[in-house]
Amino acid sequence: MELGLVGLGKMGGNMRTRLRNAGHTVVGYDQNQDISDSTSLADMVEKLPSPKVVWVMVPAGDITRSVIKELGDLLGEGDLVVDGGNSRWTDDQANAAMLDEKGIGFVDCGVSGGVWGLENGYALMYGGSAENIAKVQPAFDALKPEGEFGSVHAGEVGAGHFSKMVHNGIEYAVMQSYAEGWELLQKVDLVDNVTEVFRSWREGTVIRSWLLDLLVNALDEDPGLSKIRGYAEDSGEGRWTVEAGIDNAVATPAITAALYARFISRQDDSPAMKAIAAMRNQFGGHAVQSGPPPGGDASPV
Amino acid sequence: MELGLVGLGKMGGNMRTRLRNAGHTVVGYDQNQDISDSTSLADMVEKLPSPKVVWVMVPAGDITRSVIKELGDLLGEGDLVVDGGNSRWTDDQANAAMLDEKGIGFVDCGVSGGVWGLENGYALMYGGSAENIAKVQPAFDALKPEGEFGSVHAGEVGAGHFSKMVHNGIEYAVMQSYAEGWELLQKVDLVDNVTEVFRSWREGTVIRSWLLDLLVNALDEDPGLSKIRGYAEDSGEGRWTVEAGIDNAVATPAITAALYARFISRQDDSPAMKAIAAMRNQFGGHAVQSGPPPGGDASPV
Amino acid sequence: MELGLVGLGKMGGNMRTRLRNAGHTVVGYDQNQDISDSTSLADMVEKLPSPKVVWVMVPAGDITRSVIKELGDLLGEGDLVVDGGNSRWTDDQANAAMLDEKGIGFVDCGVSGGVWGLENGYALMYGGSAENIAKVQPAFDALKPEGEFGSVHAGEVGAGHFSKMVHNGIEYAVMQSYAEGWELLQKVDLVDNVTEVFRSWREGTVIRSWLLDLLVNALDEDPGLSKIRGYAEDSGEGRWTVEAGIDNAVATPAITAALYARFISRQDDSPAMKAIAAMRNQFGGHAVQSGPPPGGDASPV
Amino acid sequence: MELGLVGLGKMGGNMRTRLRNAGHTVVGYDQNQDISDSTSLADMVEKLPSPKVVWVMVPAGDITRSVIKELGDLLGEGDLVVDGGNSRWTDDQANAAMLDEKGIGFVDCGVSGGVWGLENGYALMYGGSAENIAKVQPAFDALKPEGEFGSVHAGEVGAGHFSKMVHNGIEYAVMQSYAEGWELLQKVDLVDNVTEVFRSWREGTVIRSWLLDLLVNALDEDPGLSKIRGYAEDSGEGRWTVEAGIDNAVATPAITAALYARFISRQDDSPAMKAIAAMRNQFGGHAVQSGPPPGGDASPV
Repeated sequence: MELGLVGLGKMGGNMRTRLRNAGHTVVGYDQNQDISDSTSLADMVEKLPSPKVVWVMVPAGDITRSVIKELGDLLGEGDLVVDGGNSRWTDDQANAAMLDEKGIGFVDCGVSGGVWGLENGYALMYGGSAENIAKVQPAFDALKPEGEFGSVHAGEVGAGHFSKMVHNGIEYAVMQSYAEGWELLQKVDLVDNVTEVFRSWREGTVIRSWLLDLLVNALDEDPGLSKIRGYAEDSGEGRWTVEAGIDNAVATPAITAALYARFISRQDDSPAMKAIAAMRNQFGGHAVQSGPPPGGDASPV
Repeated sequence: MELGLVGLGKMGGNMRTRLRNAGHTVVGYDQNQDISDSTSLADMVEKLPSPKVVWVMVPAGDITRSVIKELGDLLGEGDLVVDGGNSRWTDDQANAAMLDEKGIGFVDCGVSGGVWGLENGYALMYGGSAENIAKVQPAFDALKPEGEFGSVHAGEVGAGHFSKMVHNGIEYAVMQSYAEGWELLQKVDLVDNVTEVFRSWREGTVIRSWLLDLLVNALDEDPGLSKIRGYAEDSGEGRWTVEAGIDNAVATPAITAALYARFISRQDDSPAMKAIAAMRNQFGGHAVQSGPPPGGDASPV
Repeated sequence: MELGLVGLGKMGGNMRTRLRNAGHTVVGYDQNQDISDSTSLADMVEKLPSPKVVWVMVPAGDITRSVIKELGDLLGEGDLVVDGGNSRWTDDQANAAMLDEKGIGFVDCGVSGGVWGLENGYALMYGGSAENIAKVQPAFDALKPEGEFGSVHAGEVGAGHFSKMVHNGIEYAVMQSYAEGWELLQKVDLVDNVTEVFRSWREGTVIRSWLLDLLVNALDEDPGLSKIRGYAEDSGEGRWTVEAGIDNAVATPAITAALYARFISRQDDSPAMKAIAAMRNQFGGHAVQSGPPPGGDASPV
Repeated sequence: MELGLVGLGKMGGNMRTRLRNAGHTVVGYDQNQDISDSTSLADMVEKLPSPKVVWVMVPAGDITRSVIKELGDLLGEGDLVVDGGNSRWTDDQANAAMLDEKGIGFVDCGVSGGVWGLENGYALMYGGSAENIAKVQPAFDALKPEGEFGSVHAGEVGAGHFSKMVHNGIEYAVMQSYAEGWELLQKVDLVDNVTEVFRSWREGTVIRSWLLDLLVNALDEDPGLSKIRGYAEDSGEGRWTVEAGIDNAVATPAITAALYARFISRQDDSPAMKAIAAMRNQFGGHAVQSGPPPGGDASPV
């Protein structure tokens, strides 16, 4: 099939390659003309045969919304926009409604795969009508991994991004699970070679997984992780997962723990712990330690 | 090699089979004479050539300690006891010291694999001296999975069970991670087929894992998990992981969340929440809802 | 001063009484004509001298927004609306802007006090311009507790409800703190009379508080809390606090734990724990317990 | 009454004063001879009339155990030892059994009050037989606050320290509750004067408490808490509370959150978060940000 692809960064660029390798025709557009196949969004749209399919692969939020709005002006009846970025599912219905007024279809698609996707395929979770999804199905088939799994029509518009959001929430918590285990094993003297313990878990255990494999890779490249700082950003999707849980009265304590650990990792000092320290000072005895036992003293609280 | 194996239940019985399939001679002992190869612990020991190696595969705690104590009386200089059960690592050093007085070696070995171990091999994490481990290495090689990974000499005595304990702690939290995601996806109307979303994640995603595969199997066998109750026991190892974290001032919020979720799943009613409800009643307004808006009322707290 | 008061339920009714006891003139309006001082919002507004001050004390959300919208049509230049309900702070700026177009001022006021407020006074946290607050200050002075504390001008529009929201978030977590301690003391045989332990804490301890006093009252009225179910609703403010934390990258683990405990208290069965149980069944051994030790078996995972 | 008092540090010294102010005779012993009333434990014991009562007020753990052991050698039939330190309740039964062999009674007593205790009295939670408690009741009456509350016979030996332990666990979580609220209020621009908001809460609110009063004091002394580091030690009792919860399958998520926040406050860098960052780097895209939108890129995971 032929499709337009907006955003040719690390993700979009590799996806273009994978689509072309599968025999599809991709007209890419990127502000960076060095990598762009077209000079403008309008130029890209013009180069596509009707019905036109445009895949948007730009950062979530305002940028996605403005690109989709602009496409609403450029496309027409029977065309289709696919939002493959990390948009919040709540944006999808608004985008779909706006495009629908002009007869343009909309499909939202959560994409997972990172730098490994070019070779191994991208996991795809998409939402929309069966009719619209059929228009982009050949691209989905090319992008997904070769095996039996890796793509799903999750439901109506928004279901793709919602599913991808939950995927990322789970990812946060699974990563946190290994990280806690690693910190504990590192801390005790009893265990000599923590990396080898983690490596051994790659087969035969209940916890074997791709993230475990990645962590072992990282430990091989940087033993003890001495070169890396314990600092982690969060993309929006962990936050949205917790918020969706709250909106639906679903407790997500492990996912939330993972999210909060990231928040805290980015603080130089913790205001909350200042308040704790301040209260401890007030009821006293915690700043000063008295003399040697048994002339010592029972800590007062 | 030849070895004694105490405990021929679901785990021990399958391990005997896997060892024999690999050409080793196993003299098993079990109180259930229908499955036992010997009439008593003493009989089993007598049937083994020296230096004798006995693998203990009985439930953790008092039973393991009493079996090992009895073996201390039956074995002698140069013999070896392997504790393959889910013992707490703090037991290992006591057992090793007790046996050491008689010149008997000790190796602790955490074993993972469940009902899949017979076919796929058991993941093994063991602790002890290199000399003692050499005596049982052929059995380790037969039990472990065929691939490159799946067994590790984790460190001194206790390191095997400590590593296995942390493995299980991670397992709790990883399971909790998927479970939270599943509950959230189930709760929203937006996503039509949650099982298909989970199935799609088996390839190409960041969160692909064996536990995910198992969950998809379970969802296929019992769609919506309507036949299963939301109730989970905990073996000791999740508790011990959290306690080891506390002893070492290592925060394990995701693992702890998973443990607490199991505690709560087993309560018919929550005493803590009774106290919450009681306090809410005291400051009032929560039991009674006043008339229709705008004659309604702002909830007071 | 004279003011209109919309909503004469449990909170609004008592506040009218407290205001009148302080010598103020209150024209109340409620859909329930038995308790209303006016026949309609329009009638209430008409009865007030200019500049008119109307205090809205209805449930948060749609109802508050519709009452304020209606007041926007009835009031005029120089008049003032006070929203004393549990509105989300994000509503305040929208309401203020809408009223501002007609020259009507707006003050948001979080009110705490419950059924005790009539006698002891209501804690007030308000937001808005100094000029607008001056117009309603006599009412604030009448409603607040007699002591030195209990009311605050927290900041611009929205700051009152934001502060009240955080107050409630803290309240959730403080209640959860006592509740956890109570459950633990109840559970152990060692402590004979848990109520007396809690009662003793009312003086001399670090944790003495009004909520503790309330819990002791509740324990006196219903020893062991045997008559109450461990079930707790949540008003929106706990959720909003956690969400505000997430929006600001502020970790609120104790408040979140309290919120999640309420969610879980309302579930008959936990979908997440169904998923845990299902995974445990898959890797096996957890549904079936094997024979007597030492013929027993080590639990596999 | 007359009693010996071992340990005259900040707590013990003030308790001696309060006991003397109430007319009791105290023979204190401290290694620091400048403050001691006796030259040795033996000297102190000798100075007491029979039956002798000795209150031990030294730090928990090894020191307490060794002092009590020494007293076991110095005291005799009918005498009494009171452990007023922060001992773990599990120590109490061992100490009581050891002393019981010599006919010496034992009472455990958790003491709360800090630097405020001298003036306001100490909250006391004690465990032991009624007979033994009667022997030290006059001292309890002198030490406790003057009001109706503040002391309790919680149960058998160990119940005092268990109750005090739970008190401290609750204290951790209540402090964390205020701390989280404070951090959130500080973070947003909307609220102008966070200290004034906290101060207002001292009356009329659901969350008024002594700890709130202390936090306001601290905020007055050091506005914004700019001079204090967000670092908090933990005495053993928070840990023991969580462990006692785990032993009894009682979930304590808020208390645990408070404990973990302290652990994390003491880390320069978080090993767990290093592991998170390392995994994120492995699946890529998180270290590098691509060009300007729409030539930008959707974050891959």
